[in-house]
Amino acid sequence: MAKEMNYEPNPHASSLRRQKSKTIAVVIPEIANNFFTLAINGIESVAQEKGYHVLIYLTHEDYPREVSFLKHLHNGRVDGLLMSLSSTTTDYTHLTELQTKDIPVILFDRVSDAINTIKITTDDYDSGYQATRHLIEMGCDKIAYLMISKSLSIGTKRMEGYIQAMKDHDLSIEKEWIIYGSNDNEENLQMVCNLLKGSNRPNGLFASVERLAISAYQACEQLSLRVPEHVKIISFSNLEIAAWLNPSLTTITQPAFDMGQKAATILFKALEKKSFTITDETIILKSTLNVRKSTGG
Amino acid sequence: MAKEMNYEPNPHASSLRRQKSKTIAVVIPEIANNFFTLAINGIESVAQEKGYHVLIYLTHEDYPREVSFLKHLHNGRVDGLLMSLSSTTTDYTHLTELQTKDIPVILFDRVSDAINTIKITTDDYDSGYQATRHLIEMGCDKIAYLMISKSLSIGTKRMEGYIQAMKDHDLSIEKEWIIYGSNDNEENLQMVCNLLKGSNRPNGLFASVERLAISAYQACEQLSLRVPEHVKIISFSNLEIAAWLNPSLTTITQPAFDMGQKAATILFKALEKKSFTITDETIILKSTLNVRKSTGG
Repeated sequence: MAKEMNYEPNPHASSLRRQKSKTIAVVIPEIANNFFTLAINGIESVAQEKGYHVLIYLTHEDYPREVSFLKHLHNGRVDGLLMSLSSTTTDYTHLTELQTKDIPVILFDRVSDAINTIKITTDDYDSGYQATRHLIEMGCDKIAYLMISKSLSIGTKRMEGYIQAMKDHDLSIEKEWIIYGSNDNEENLQMVCNLLKGSNRPNGLFASVERLAISAYQACEQLSLRVPEHVKIISFSNLEIAAWLNPSLTTITQPAFDMGQKAATILFKALEKKSFTITDETIILKSTLNVRKSTGG
Repeated sequence: MAKEMNYEPNPHASSLRRQKSKTIAVVIPEIANNFFTLAINGIESVAQEKGYHVLIYLTHEDYPREVSFLKHLHNGRVDGLLMSLSSTTTDYTHLTELQTKDIPVILFDRVSDAINTIKITTDDYDSGYQATRHLIEMGCDKIAYLMISKSLSIGTKRMEGYIQAMKDHDLSIEKEWIIYGSNDNEENLQMVCNLLKGSNRPNGLFASVERLAISAYQACEQLSLRVPEHVKIISFSNLEIAAWLNPSLTTITQPAFDMGQKAATILFKALEKKSFTITDETIILKSTLNVRKSTGG
């Protein structure tokens, strides 16, 4: 009868009575990056089965925006939250506040040890090590590391792997070989060009995000350096068409879909079973190395 | 004082009092497609300036999901809606219901004349014509058209442009040259392979979405057909790295960011000025042809 009359229960009144919103929020820094589109597909594969709506919110790496939106989620707008932190976030009160209101929060990819919850991440340190070792095995002895942000845990973990691999192979790292890029492609291109025009030019480039790999391709073209003959390039990337680039790009591929699926599966366990305890632990899913022509493979 | 005590006004109670949610929803079919990530950036560039939150919802081309989510938006959850229709949507009651509840709805990209509102779209017919004419000018006389869905207005408009261009140049179209792909990349690859193994093999492929262009590249490699010597390929695409594919991909690029920005600008006019009337009109922003090596450019 309610249905026939096109009657919709007032969602706010319902929420006030402590009913479920049947909605979860996914808060991520951006979607230009292919990783997050795949992770969202993983999340939605679970949510759809559970009959939940998924609201996606982008912080654009902006901490105040992240805080403002999370405050917006209080009082039953959503039942739970899956989140990947903005690179500018260093205080986590906005997250612990949600937790105290019984809204479970599961972190994925961009996580912080400062928050007491389950974190789904990939083996960033090991992958950073593995990528660097691959470049060394292919003949590189001067390897630069290109990253976007100084503050991010994943960026620094990947870099720690790079530093350790260089050390283990008795290779030194020049200070100017560690490049901090931005969201400005033009600026990134300039930085990589300057790096490659320097006196002690690297013969290997390790890009921690795919955007910087494209800047590296462009810089090599501008300077008439051949990939992989003069410069070898490897990148973290979930780009389906990495194999179709010219030359094809050697990648470290994160299990993006699986990470989203795993995070969502845990969140729904917490939502469905009152007895389920969200422990403070990190679950690591492994990334894979795909050797292609940009490293001479 | 409220702030000091960490008190958050109950959003539902506020909404019941007809206050604004300061939130808009963006409902789109998918984000795997680069077009929508760029359109979202255009939308957020406006929303951010206005101090609004943007909630993104993906229908995955599923009509019941689209209906269910829109019902979820009634009663003040959001102030307005920007929407690109799912390919399976043929009834629009769920949209007109929102409109009767004074929630303005602006359509972009995937629009329907059946809904009385402002629609932001690109010149799909003209671009389809232009892409086909470009292939003909580059020497193709047997051109196949690869599309994803039969039901979509944009897909058919692009195809009408293709059909008219062929007709205007006295070229015939074989029935098997019009391919209806799916979301399954493996299946699409098989279909393009079968097309290229046929007795009357096309020497030009026009992909209406970039995913099918990649299937075309793969099929040509499998069959040892060279691009552009044996087969020329053009595609609708917003992929930043189209220029870095091997060979670089000739594209028709939609003004994705501008379309999102335009749609959001109109929505906020409707939200801010009670006197603003949403007319029933279509605003067309032009796509551009970028000639690259895959068509011999």
